[in-house]
Amino acid sequence: MLKTSIIPSFCLDGKRVNCVPVKSFNTRLKEHIHSTGSHLCVGLDINPEALKMNYSTLDDLKSHTRKVIDATADLAAVYKPNMAFFERWGSEGVKWLEETMEWIGDSALTIGDAKRGDIGNTARQYAASLFNYFGFDAVTVNPYMGRDAIEPFTQDSEKGVFVLCRTSNASAGDFQDINSNGETLFESVAKLVKKLNSNDNLGLVVGGTSATEISQIRKVVKDLPFLIPGIGAQGGDLESSFKSGNTDGIALINVSRGIIFAGDLSAKAIRKEAKRYVEIMQSFK
Amino acid sequence: MLKTSIIPSFCLDGKRVNCVPVKSFNTRLKEHIHSTGSHLCVGLDINPEALKMNYSTLDDLKSHTRKVIDATADLAAVYKPNMAFFERWGSEGVKWLEETMEWIGDSALTIGDAKRGDIGNTARQYAASLFNYFGFDAVTVNPYMGRDAIEPFTQDSEKGVFVLCRTSNASAGDFQDINSNGETLFESVAKLVKKLNSNDNLGLVVGGTSATEISQIRKVVKDLPFLIPGIGAQGGDLESSFKSGNTDGIALINVSRGIIFAGDLSAKAIRKEAKRYVEIMQSFK
Repeated sequence: MLKTSIIPSFCLDGKRVNCVPVKSFNTRLKEHIHSTGSHLCVGLDINPEALKMNYSTLDDLKSHTRKVIDATADLAAVYKPNMAFFERWGSEGVKWLEETMEWIGDSALTIGDAKRGDIGNTARQYAASLFNYFGFDAVTVNPYMGRDAIEPFTQDSEKGVFVLCRTSNASAGDFQDINSNGETLFESVAKLVKKLNSNDNLGLVVGGTSATEISQIRKVVKDLPFLIPGIGAQGGDLESSFKSGNTDGIALINVSRGIIFAGDLSAKAIRKEAKRYVEIMQSFK
Repeated sequence: MLKTSIIPSFCLDGKRVNCVPVKSFNTRLKEHIHSTGSHLCVGLDINPEALKMNYSTLDDLKSHTRKVIDATADLAAVYKPNMAFFERWGSEGVKWLEETMEWIGDSALTIGDAKRGDIGNTARQYAASLFNYFGFDAVTVNPYMGRDAIEPFTQDSEKGVFVLCRTSNASAGDFQDINSNGETLFESVAKLVKKLNSNDNLGLVVGGTSATEISQIRKVVKDLPFLIPGIGAQGGDLESSFKSGNTDGIALINVSRGIIFAGDLSAKAIRKEAKRYVEIMQSFK
């Protein structure tokens, strides 16, 4: 984390100095999931409205974040801080994110859920921010501007990039389902991502709301990891999403609110819910 | 700017308390451009690599930012800080953005070039960050996730939203040009944005690299403002972009590097170049 206050310009190329690259991100993720036995990604989307009466200051949000991490440290394969929830508080929020990254430490991998989508020099600044400054292992990226918006993030093979493909929100189909010559936009995105995966560090964000679409995308990209959000507190969608996604490639299941605001918001309730998700997924194998 | 350290939750709804809304963003922009006589948006994308030998610390970047604002305060209708260039430096960079917003003050409108593209609760956090915390007058937004990614930003009619439509980068066509039933994806985006404009605060980002596409989009959305980036130091594209875009709706022309790193990086060189752009555009009318 927070490597230096001024990052030397070589970092912008995603290259390392005095440092031998070890393994690609997709290999790291696969090995990490195998060694932990967990496909669970815990989304850190912590806002005061959800904490209700248990919140009065930013310190309360920090304290809850730490509680979630402590309660799930041996259960979460990955943590996914959602940038918006930190940025909302300006520079103080960014400090909270810095602290969060330190609390997570090396026990889990981290995905910066930023959904950035910009090009060239701007995308390189975002990559420098997310990979070099905050130290995320992977990020989420938006493909609307084409390959220019993806490639600046893929230069360091150890760092991963999950590109939005078919998302889980109600209006996802407004554009993603547009069909041209028998191919949907989300299938076109999957094909381009497959083509760009020369460093073995690309994956896709595929919403957990339709097992049919997950299977459809799995046919296009056999072995790329899927980050699957949109799973509710119910096991139904979880089972079909997991089984459709976790075939040749890894499925990483994200749960945010269902875990971080579980029950009475106690460490015990949070841990119980995280454990339930991990065990349900283990039962599918 | 920086309204409070903890933002009350009512701000998340984009509603004002003890404050009567005055005018829609699109009206504010139009009146501001008419009163200043300038269609120039100065993009603040300030990175150390471009400053070369004139840079050694973050204070040098701050100093250059202030120099640009002081030199162009009566010429720029709008400033567009690019979030990536500030985020690269973590919490210190966010402080620099806070200072930048204070330096700009009320003389110009501001667009937060964030290109955020997320939904529901997450989009509301981003809106709270950009509108309420930093105090931007408008933001740029990415439409890949559909209307869910746009609507949370449009609730306050005084605040503007420029949705990415046809961008100016080399790979813009990877997805934006996909044609379904005779309509390109970027035309579909323009149509949806037109439909969502019930608060008169939506506009489009349309790259300045093709006058044909600008005209094509102008046919779909007659009176929406266009934010046009991608204009080089040459007047050629500027003329065709301006004339194609500035018809029934306003065209706002963004120039970043051409101004902020002009000549020998002196205030004089920066001002001269900004003035040149303003005067060229005035000559088109």
